[in-house]
Amino acid sequence: MNSMTASNLKSAFGGESMASMRYLQWGAFAKKEGFKNVANLFEAVAYAERVHAGNHFRELRNEVGEASVTAGAGFGMTTTSENLHGAIEGENYEIQQMYPSFLSVADMQKEKGSIRSFQFALEAEKCHSELFTKAKEDVDNGKDFTENTVHVCDICGYTLTGELEEDCPICKARVEMFTTFVTAE
Amino acid sequence: MNSMTASNLKSAFGGESMASMRYLQWGAFAKKEGFKNVANLFEAVAYAERVHAGNHFRELRNEVGEASVTAGAGFGMTTTSENLHGAIEGENYEIQQMYPSFLSVADMQKEKGSIRSFQFALEAEKCHSELFTKAKEDVDNGKDFTENTVHVCDICGYTLTGELEEDCPICKARVEMFTTFVTAE
Ligand SMILES: [Fe+2]
Ligand SMILES: [Fe+2]
Ligand SMILES: [Fe+2]
Ligand SMILES: [Fe+2]
Ligand SMILES: [Fe+2]
Ligand SMILES: [Fe+2]
Repeated sequence: MNSMTASNLKSAFGGESMASMRYLQWGAFAKKEGFKNVANLFEAVAYAERVHAGNHFRELRNEVGEASVTAGAGFGMTTTSENLHGAIEGENYEIQQMYPSFLSVADMQKEKGSIRSFQFALEAEKCHSELFTKAKEDVDNGKDFTENTVHVCDICGYTLTGELEEDCPICKARVEMFTTFVTAE
Repeated sequence: MNSMTASNLKSAFGGESMASMRYLQWGAFAKKEGFKNVANLFEAVAYAERVHAGNHFRELRNEVGEASVTAGAGFGMTTTSENLHGAIEGENYEIQQMYPSFLSVADMQKEKGSIRSFQFALEAEKCHSELFTKAKEDVDNGKDFTENTVHVCDICGYTLTGELEEDCPICKARVEMFTTFVTAE
């Protein structure tokens, strides 16, 4: 594998791993603040980021050894509204800057597997940004997020609320390949 | 919080987040190779690293905003023996280099919460290194890891096999605060 794409995959793995852990923390925090559906959304998206991290990690399967990894990450845990703001910022950074840049290099270097892994993540982050934006509007209006059911594609991390009726629009996986998160009563 | 300790906490958060994701991948790989107890050990230790990542993240609760994080991480997925070798190397780096260095700075800067978070992780990594070393010996002898039950302290990530009889030796949490992982049949 070309070293620049390998380095970008490692950075993306770092960013996704930290995002997954951050959302688990923000989910637990939202639960304590009484926003149960926001907590469920954070847990579902944490799982989607785990799918992305796993996809990138498996692309790196032959790059055996220790590496120093640099990646972007959001911090802080003050209010659920602020956490959702941080989540939207992080997703938009990946959508607007990180994945387009990594894809451009992977395209140039003809790294097919990496292109697929980056593309899956890029498309899924667009859903995440939208869902967090909706959730923040609800929270800023003093309400919980309206949706209590979130589905995540195990293959590409595509994330949707409501009914799961069709195969994954990103990776074409069957509905059986989705994991569903429902708010705990 | 002093900026050097904040930077070290972010780096430790990055390292723990990536370790957690890596062990989940290596666990799934071990399962496919037929090493069910190794898979269970990887899943349990992935959970312990998640505890460490969460502890570091919560210490950073007032450091709101985006940051660029640099952290060490192991890559590659070729054989379970090689993966266990990578796991031992990563744990030993944290035990011998990373956490002693971060603790030395946190001591000097009198960052009590960070000292606690780093100390919990350092002590738990010692168990991880030992458990992975035993598992690698078994795998290199053509066998699965002998232990099918692993307990992890939810507060500090302390990890042990066999019977859970006493409060946590690191953080004094009661046995009820442990999460137990048993190999799936
Ligand atoms: Fe992602
Ligand atoms: Fe995302
Ligand atoms: Fe998909
Ligand atoms: Fe750890
Ligand atoms: Fe560890
Ligand atoms: Fe403990």
